[in-house]
Amino acid sequence: MGRKLHYGMVGGGPGAFIGDAHRRSINLDGMAELVAGCFSRSYEGTLETGKALGIAPDRLYRTFEEMAAAESKREDGIDFAVVVTPNHAHYAACKAFLEAGIHVSCDKPLCVNSEQALELERLAREKGLLFLVTYTYMGHVTAKHAREIIKRGDIGTVRTVAAEYPQGWLAHEGEWGGKQGSWRCDPKQSGDTNCLGDIGTHIENTVAMMTGLKIRRVLAKMDKVVPGRLLDDNDFVLVEYENGATGMYWSSQIAIGHDNSLRVRIYGDGGSIQWFQEEPEKITVVKKDGSLTEHHRGYGSIAPAAAKYARLPSGHPEGWIEAMANLYRSFIECIRAKEAGTFAEDMVDFPTVSDGADGVRFIEACLKSTRNGNTWVEL
Amino acid sequence: MGRKLHYGMVGGGPGAFIGDAHRRSINLDGMAELVAGCFSRSYEGTLETGKALGIAPDRLYRTFEEMAAAESKREDGIDFAVVVTPNHAHYAACKAFLEAGIHVSCDKPLCVNSEQALELERLAREKGLLFLVTYTYMGHVTAKHAREIIKRGDIGTVRTVAAEYPQGWLAHEGEWGGKQGSWRCDPKQSGDTNCLGDIGTHIENTVAMMTGLKIRRVLAKMDKVVPGRLLDDNDFVLVEYENGATGMYWSSQIAIGHDNSLRVRIYGDGGSIQWFQEEPEKITVVKKDGSLTEHHRGYGSIAPAAAKYARLPSGHPEGWIEAMANLYRSFIECIRAKEAGTFAEDMVDFPTVSDGADGVRFIEACLKSTRNGNTWVEL
Amino acid sequence: MGRKLHYGMVGGGPGAFIGDAHRRSINLDGMAELVAGCFSRSYEGTLETGKALGIAPDRLYRTFEEMAAAESKREDGIDFAVVVTPNHAHYAACKAFLEAGIHVSCDKPLCVNSEQALELERLAREKGLLFLVTYTYMGHVTAKHAREIIKRGDIGTVRTVAAEYPQGWLAHEGEWGGKQGSWRCDPKQSGDTNCLGDIGTHIENTVAMMTGLKIRRVLAKMDKVVPGRLLDDNDFVLVEYENGATGMYWSSQIAIGHDNSLRVRIYGDGGSIQWFQEEPEKITVVKKDGSLTEHHRGYGSIAPAAAKYARLPSGHPEGWIEAMANLYRSFIECIRAKEAGTFAEDMVDFPTVSDGADGVRFIEACLKSTRNGNTWVEL
Amino acid sequence: MGRKLHYGMVGGGPGAFIGDAHRRSINLDGMAELVAGCFSRSYEGTLETGKALGIAPDRLYRTFEEMAAAESKREDGIDFAVVVTPNHAHYAACKAFLEAGIHVSCDKPLCVNSEQALELERLAREKGLLFLVTYTYMGHVTAKHAREIIKRGDIGTVRTVAAEYPQGWLAHEGEWGGKQGSWRCDPKQSGDTNCLGDIGTHIENTVAMMTGLKIRRVLAKMDKVVPGRLLDDNDFVLVEYENGATGMYWSSQIAIGHDNSLRVRIYGDGGSIQWFQEEPEKITVVKKDGSLTEHHRGYGSIAPAAAKYARLPSGHPEGWIEAMANLYRSFIECIRAKEAGTFAEDMVDFPTVSDGADGVRFIEACLKSTRNGNTWVEL
Repeated sequence: MGRKLHYGMVGGGPGAFIGDAHRRSINLDGMAELVAGCFSRSYEGTLETGKALGIAPDRLYRTFEEMAAAESKREDGIDFAVVVTPNHAHYAACKAFLEAGIHVSCDKPLCVNSEQALELERLAREKGLLFLVTYTYMGHVTAKHAREIIKRGDIGTVRTVAAEYPQGWLAHEGEWGGKQGSWRCDPKQSGDTNCLGDIGTHIENTVAMMTGLKIRRVLAKMDKVVPGRLLDDNDFVLVEYENGATGMYWSSQIAIGHDNSLRVRIYGDGGSIQWFQEEPEKITVVKKDGSLTEHHRGYGSIAPAAAKYARLPSGHPEGWIEAMANLYRSFIECIRAKEAGTFAEDMVDFPTVSDGADGVRFIEACLKSTRNGNTWVEL
Repeated sequence: MGRKLHYGMVGGGPGAFIGDAHRRSINLDGMAELVAGCFSRSYEGTLETGKALGIAPDRLYRTFEEMAAAESKREDGIDFAVVVTPNHAHYAACKAFLEAGIHVSCDKPLCVNSEQALELERLAREKGLLFLVTYTYMGHVTAKHAREIIKRGDIGTVRTVAAEYPQGWLAHEGEWGGKQGSWRCDPKQSGDTNCLGDIGTHIENTVAMMTGLKIRRVLAKMDKVVPGRLLDDNDFVLVEYENGATGMYWSSQIAIGHDNSLRVRIYGDGGSIQWFQEEPEKITVVKKDGSLTEHHRGYGSIAPAAAKYARLPSGHPEGWIEAMANLYRSFIECIRAKEAGTFAEDMVDFPTVSDGADGVRFIEACLKSTRNGNTWVEL
Repeated sequence: MGRKLHYGMVGGGPGAFIGDAHRRSINLDGMAELVAGCFSRSYEGTLETGKALGIAPDRLYRTFEEMAAAESKREDGIDFAVVVTPNHAHYAACKAFLEAGIHVSCDKPLCVNSEQALELERLAREKGLLFLVTYTYMGHVTAKHAREIIKRGDIGTVRTVAAEYPQGWLAHEGEWGGKQGSWRCDPKQSGDTNCLGDIGTHIENTVAMMTGLKIRRVLAKMDKVVPGRLLDDNDFVLVEYENGATGMYWSSQIAIGHDNSLRVRIYGDGGSIQWFQEEPEKITVVKKDGSLTEHHRGYGSIAPAAAKYARLPSGHPEGWIEAMANLYRSFIECIRAKEAGTFAEDMVDFPTVSDGADGVRFIEACLKSTRNGNTWVEL
Repeated sequence: MGRKLHYGMVGGGPGAFIGDAHRRSINLDGMAELVAGCFSRSYEGTLETGKALGIAPDRLYRTFEEMAAAESKREDGIDFAVVVTPNHAHYAACKAFLEAGIHVSCDKPLCVNSEQALELERLAREKGLLFLVTYTYMGHVTAKHAREIIKRGDIGTVRTVAAEYPQGWLAHEGEWGGKQGSWRCDPKQSGDTNCLGDIGTHIENTVAMMTGLKIRRVLAKMDKVVPGRLLDDNDFVLVEYENGATGMYWSSQIAIGHDNSLRVRIYGDGGSIQWFQEEPEKITVVKKDGSLTEHHRGYGSIAPAAAKYARLPSGHPEGWIEAMANLYRSFIECIRAKEAGTFAEDMVDFPTVSDGADGVRFIEACLKSTRNGNTWVEL
């Protein structure tokens, strides 16, 4: 164990699922401690959450600008900020902390347009700061293993990808999705997309990180299916990658019977892999001779670069919290290495601001394709 | 049991898989007997197969024209002809038997263009003959059950469909697919399509028969992936149905790890169904309250119109042979009813020449969309 | 194809499931034809069934003795008899045909005590006749594959076995099991056991044939669970084999949620196999390094001695009918070889009268152990 | 959130898996903080672990006796002690903390004989202290749900139980199991049992807590399978419960292909449940009409008393850490309630010292049965 880092949080006030999940994930390894926060747009909300979490009152802030300024001046100021506000507010908060010289972790999608994304990329690079975008699923040991075995050639050159993220929670008219659902379906709060921005972006990121492939162009059909809905809730995207491979991404919030069913299947000329987020303890690998094997977390068949993240022996299930914690583990190790002067780029084992920017460009291109009547759009 | 019918076969000579499979399926119930054949383009081939099958020598024919003429004149002539030649030869053979007043069973796809399809439809209608197109999968008890519960409203109005038929047997350059593979990949023998015509058409038929939906338009991307391949081997098709619902069909012969993985998932506003051809003994149904149930063949939950086809109790697996046999069971019962004067249209529980014609039109539209650079084409 | 054999059937009259299933299975390959029968204890029943099946009236018999006598004298007499009566009637019928020099296929369990079993074994041996006991499940390609890979050492020396056959169809008081259920639960018709004799015997046979292990002793607890039941409906049996390995067999008719859930798991010092009758298209093999592979019917990984029985390509499911048909395929090939003078013992790939006798001894020992208060009984 | 409790740990020094797992699980909710420890038999080990964990040096103790004495006197002393030593040391440590008036959490099995168990039960009761025995698996939401639906009658009266916990990690001679394996296989450190004491006890506890059934008698066959092994590694136990129901428990460490495959299947006269520890997000429920449903964590079908423990929405997998954390959640809530004077017995939702004592008695009876040649032994 190295020094226990300090962090602050923007967002994650009363009733917010994702802030709570970030805190639990960071708790899991005890490598960092929450010491500051601006949890809510209302100061009362921030005080309430801060008290419940045992934060010192002088480190509960009215605005993130105030927090960035104050914390950057303290001797014991935060090492990194976690931004878990609604999407439209990500940009300004991330920018403030970067400008104050503080490392940033931000929930996906990174921001709402590619100009913002470029600006955040530029800032992080120029300031030499680390920037984690919490695409959780790449934290799974088996997702990392998929990446490793594709990289080392187990399935040969990728030819086609069938990936999907169906959910059913917004299949219903009216109030089904609760508070979460209502802001997500509201163009004023979610911008130009709901389904693709919320979950389609996970498909894009997971495939990109597993395969290393860059998208050349997309053809998207983003539909509003439930009567009265103002934003997309069912999206098909055809994809061509720069190496000539193809893909099909389906994301849906109206697919009754699915929860967070991110399923990625990648077919190469030497084999294939199948990975399913809801059963993250294994991946299925088939070689070109037809032999089918399952690789289970915790076994010797798991690539070392993935295996090192396991906390439990095989057969004692790890899940989503561990995946998120794995992103933070690498992020925190990199911060410590920066501090120690031992940092190297190849230590970065988490989605960065550049991956987040790719996600934003993907969404923009899909929106344009849909507006154009489902035609190809270059990225 | 009624009278045992007589049938003849065109195609199905030495080494032909599908002719053998038709014969076994018809054998299963013992409702019809093979008595005539023109099994091969070479008369020697026909004689050899005929002898092995115990057919009387005077009913082994040099051509299907000869067979149609001779059998239609016999007192004990065949009641129906089974056409299992390569695709490009279907049309002429079917036409000959229809014109001779003989019922026809023909393998899918029905024929190679929509003009031929219309002509066969017309002939069958005018002659009052029955015409089975052997899209096998709709013969499964659970596929029929899916159709029944959708028809009675269990999942409400269909909104979107995710259906696929991946295979891996043609993933390899060179000889992998054997004799089967080499003719299928040859434009001279297969026409303008391989993958979509061979298996994509099964997706189209299964979805159409389960849901009753008509396709309004398609946007297709048919790719030749394996180096040197002359016909499509990986196809994505976006679909819009006449009721406004949408769909995505993926068919592939390069998806290592899959055999005949026809999987159909149908999402309505009241629930969803998931059906998988390789595990045909069950379907999964989820209702809009999230409750997930499996319906297993052999249980009281199976709709009577589907349940009546079961031959074995639950837990003793039925498979592909039984599915094919179920198509023939209804076809033969309809022929007997025609003979008895008790036939009614609603007795027809098999894919007909009209369903086959729909399949041909679907393929034509996908080819056109691909040629046009992946644009929408109306059916 | 060789000569089409002739066979006769005893039992299998109106409403009998198992006789119908035997006939369909034999039909599948068209290697034998039903030409004679004594289907029912009532001659009217026999005439009715015979007519429906198209049997010549002079080959419909009042008794099996009459049938054995008449058929053995005919030039074109039956090559084999299929005995599918209730269990208590197996012995006399089998004996009659053996004594008349006719090969026999008999449903399991072979007979009701070990004296009968020894007598049938003796008769078959002395007469040089073939005797198939239709333990269907060993007909599955994957069950034969399990046997082959165990034989060749893939899992090393067997150490322990966990095998079970739970069903739920007799979980209910009263009429649930229908006609089938009522005779099975009646000591007058079923003898001393219901559950163990009907399905526990399948566990014994499947494990014996897969592993080649002989049982040294058993400790059984056979319970009557449903109030009012007179015969066992839930049985636990501990087993020790002659090589020192151990096993646990559970058979049940009160296990709601199961149909014919014969599951066999065999653990050696070099690996393990898991096989499940309701999903007979694959087996799972784990080696001692923890690597898990699935072997699917139709792939090159299947041992040739098993693979040769496949009729369909992988991914087009085969099921119970094919398993039964595989037993008959080998049985008929052996009869033809006897006729041709080319028969050799190692051609026998089906459960014989000796395997049937092992099953009878297993049941006797379990009954004795239960009567003794669950103590060990040597076989 | 209430007050953050303080706890100390005995055991859990360098390289100890289980101590680390307890700390992470408690971290997850942030309801308690580790402030004291005696982590190792060597004081250097304790100092090293304590430093890594950030414990104040004056609260790192040479012995648990010293720790119990010192902490019970401090104003800010620990609220509870976590005992995660090897099994034979549990008793003395637990006793010391109970006598010092400190609540205790102890790993399973509770202790090594029933006299010890009775003494710990007595002490806890007399002192009015809470005592958690960390049978982790009952912490799963779905395990609690199973208990709830059985309690409310969904499957009627329990008739039979088939439960198992196979592992493969000790299938090999020699060093396979590493350090863990070598102490577990050593009678000096593990006492009279390895397999049954380590994992068979989990079966006993899970079934007892799910069903509420008390065991009347057992018949056990505990075998030493791997050559050279001195303690049991493969155990079959037949069980009779006080209500007349029966069960079969299989635990194994030589079952290659399994990790922590605790599977519990419970059959009542009105239905059945199937629950599998390695897929803890769902349970399968079949009713007596044959209807099969899956109940998934996160859905409305989950009983409120179980559902309240979920931290993540359905489809984002929770696992073993969450299960353990759920035991601690209830334990800590009960401690707070004791402090607040609001405690009531029905708040206890974790395995207690009495459940632990049942486990010890179960093991003793199985050992006796085995010594007696596999005869029935009353509990």
